[in-house]
Amino acid sequence: MPSFVTHLEAAIDGTHLPAGQVQTMHDDRPLWVRYDLDAVGRSFSKEMLRDRPPTLWRYRELLPITDEQHIVTLGEGMSPLLPCPRLGQKLGLDDLLIKDESQLPTGSFKSRGMALAITMAHGFGIQRVAVPSAGNAGGAAAAYAARAGMEAFVFMPQDTPIINQYECVVAGAKTFVANGLITDCGRIVREGKPHMNWFDLSTLKEPYRIEGKKTMGLELAEQLDWELPDVILYPTGGGTGLIGMWKAFDELARLGWLKSDRRPRMVSVQSDGCCPIVRAFEAGERFATPFENAATVASGLRVPAAVGDFMILDAIRASGGCAVAAEETRLREWMDLSVSTEGISVCPETAACVGALEKLVADGWIKPHERVVVFNTGGSQKYVEAIRSTLPVIDLEQPFDWDWIAG
Amino acid sequence: MPSFVTHLEAAIDGTHLPAGQVQTMHDDRPLWVRYDLDAVGRSFSKEMLRDRPPTLWRYRELLPITDEQHIVTLGEGMSPLLPCPRLGQKLGLDDLLIKDESQLPTGSFKSRGMALAITMAHGFGIQRVAVPSAGNAGGAAAAYAARAGMEAFVFMPQDTPIINQYECVVAGAKTFVANGLITDCGRIVREGKPHMNWFDLSTLKEPYRIEGKKTMGLELAEQLDWELPDVILYPTGGGTGLIGMWKAFDELARLGWLKSDRRPRMVSVQSDGCCPIVRAFEAGERFATPFENAATVASGLRVPAAVGDFMILDAIRASGGCAVAAEETRLREWMDLSVSTEGISVCPETAACVGALEKLVADGWIKPHERVVVFNTGGSQKYVEAIRSTLPVIDLEQPFDWDWIAG
Repeated sequence: MPSFVTHLEAAIDGTHLPAGQVQTMHDDRPLWVRYDLDAVGRSFSKEMLRDRPPTLWRYRELLPITDEQHIVTLGEGMSPLLPCPRLGQKLGLDDLLIKDESQLPTGSFKSRGMALAITMAHGFGIQRVAVPSAGNAGGAAAAYAARAGMEAFVFMPQDTPIINQYECVVAGAKTFVANGLITDCGRIVREGKPHMNWFDLSTLKEPYRIEGKKTMGLELAEQLDWELPDVILYPTGGGTGLIGMWKAFDELARLGWLKSDRRPRMVSVQSDGCCPIVRAFEAGERFATPFENAATVASGLRVPAAVGDFMILDAIRASGGCAVAAEETRLREWMDLSVSTEGISVCPETAACVGALEKLVADGWIKPHERVVVFNTGGSQKYVEAIRSTLPVIDLEQPFDWDWIAG
Repeated sequence: MPSFVTHLEAAIDGTHLPAGQVQTMHDDRPLWVRYDLDAVGRSFSKEMLRDRPPTLWRYRELLPITDEQHIVTLGEGMSPLLPCPRLGQKLGLDDLLIKDESQLPTGSFKSRGMALAITMAHGFGIQRVAVPSAGNAGGAAAAYAARAGMEAFVFMPQDTPIINQYECVVAGAKTFVANGLITDCGRIVREGKPHMNWFDLSTLKEPYRIEGKKTMGLELAEQLDWELPDVILYPTGGGTGLIGMWKAFDELARLGWLKSDRRPRMVSVQSDGCCPIVRAFEAGERFATPFENAATVASGLRVPAAVGDFMILDAIRASGGCAVAAEETRLREWMDLSVSTEGISVCPETAACVGALEKLVADGWIKPHERVVVFNTGGSQKYVEAIRSTLPVIDLEQPFDWDWIAG
């Protein structure tokens, strides 16, 4: 099956670049992948989805792949969309859903982007990739590179959660920690290019991770029978998913697949320990000022400067959405609340969304009857440092104290 | 929709017990759930699966649920069945597949059993559950209990992997560690019953976890277009999955859904640090002697005495299979081999299966052309202790040493 991609387009100024060859950025800013949507519409119908496996590749006409033989897959997608009546009630919402991305390969939504990025890189004959990561991206890159038989290099700040470090090593990636920030790790990858001949998989520095993340929006639409929710809350670090979903909704609308013109209000959620997008939104800016002294246990939110800041802010504003910072000191509380009321393995990034919901419902910005979807971008299990707990000890030499056990 | 369950049957002596009320064991041994398969066959067809969501509930006619309103779900199943050509080549196998259960809720296959056990308990009006666990079962029980709004108690040996401990706490379970083994924790749950009025979710001490695990076999059959593989390797602690799959194949055969009479040879894999089933198999025994001083990083295999030992051994023998112990000291090596060649997040229990494959191929017990399926029962990310690594450090104050980075 041929791809329906017509060209790549610079997000900053609309310059066209050819697809079908390795591309990175234009003017140090990201690229969009553009499709011949009329042709897609003639070849692809909702009904065809009925017989396709439940992975993100079911939307292949809206993906940049040219040869199905090159697909590098670990069976990623479709993640479940789970009603959360009990958590909804606590928050004053009648129709709250969580899309649980913790059930993807390597336990996070990063697998969507890396599945596409590595598939495309593999198709272009790239043998060696590198990525800076302060969280789940490294493990996903390492896993998909392993799956493709590629060599992978991962560079992480020393305070990256230990599971994120170890998962890269186990997957055979050459993994390093550096005494600095993710931006420093990004510099290693950038400066290494001429010496190491690796391909840079950094967020939005190649065009295809966004196409992988886009499938969150495609799945959501399909799971809701092509009627989009009123509000989407998305924990925002690099913001690829938010950008990707907004693009997905646009493509679906052009295909005529959506039941109404109504689009969700997109809410970008950060921690007050690192909230450059929130500050830019509030200041009415299109570009965000790098956030100084970024610190949050929600490692995926610790992105002081996002290369796609203007794409995030454009999408939020076009949607009638907003950007909200949740209190860093309350993330564990919201995490415990979410997991203990619904059983979903909610990560600290998603906990921030629960905090944002408290605020937005109290403000009346979200009405109780509105349909709200929160993205759970990864499993709580990967955040050992954030969920560290002291457990009561039972001494088997002593008689059991049932009153004490009952609590 | 009514359930097709006719009765429960004691595995040890065939005694019939009524379904539709709370049941535990008979003569301290497990129960089978029995169905009116003729009636199932009249109501259920392969074609009906086409329009059902990709969760284990798609097989609801072969599950004990009576009321779909009571289903307690986190979107579990269908886990991907992934071809592993590169790992296969290393092992001398042409057609190796891994069914990746790490992509289920809480990152392990335990969610299948707990989804069913909690759904049934919920339907019976049970409000409080308890479980002993040395690994992934506790977190799954805690998550599903939370999802159902039940109170959960989890008792774990002090050396249980920390993630398994923390995930229970975050899910709101009352979680305790004890200075002993899983058998001691089992005793706490047993002795607590009259004081605490909780329902015991221990492996095979209630009849429905096996029905949940059975869906691994149903999915496998559907994913292979109703033609079962030649060999299945299954890491065996309590063995519920192996028993459940063997039951699934029998039920599918009776329904006439399988394309041939051929059944897989079932291989039970343990670590030589705890291999009671392997010893019993080799000794020609039907019941296993408790294993002294059990020790393995594969926490799911650290089950010195399995209450369903005879059910495991019966299934292995009926299938023409065998039981193999892999070397404890090489688990990390096989784990690294698997993850780095295929990108699948393989846990130490599954690593033992890779070790067993080396042996079985070398012995000629498995032929190179045979189709072999290995179950990856959980994600490597949950085993921090087993995957601990020392990473090289880059000092950002120094010039980058590209030769050193290249390795």
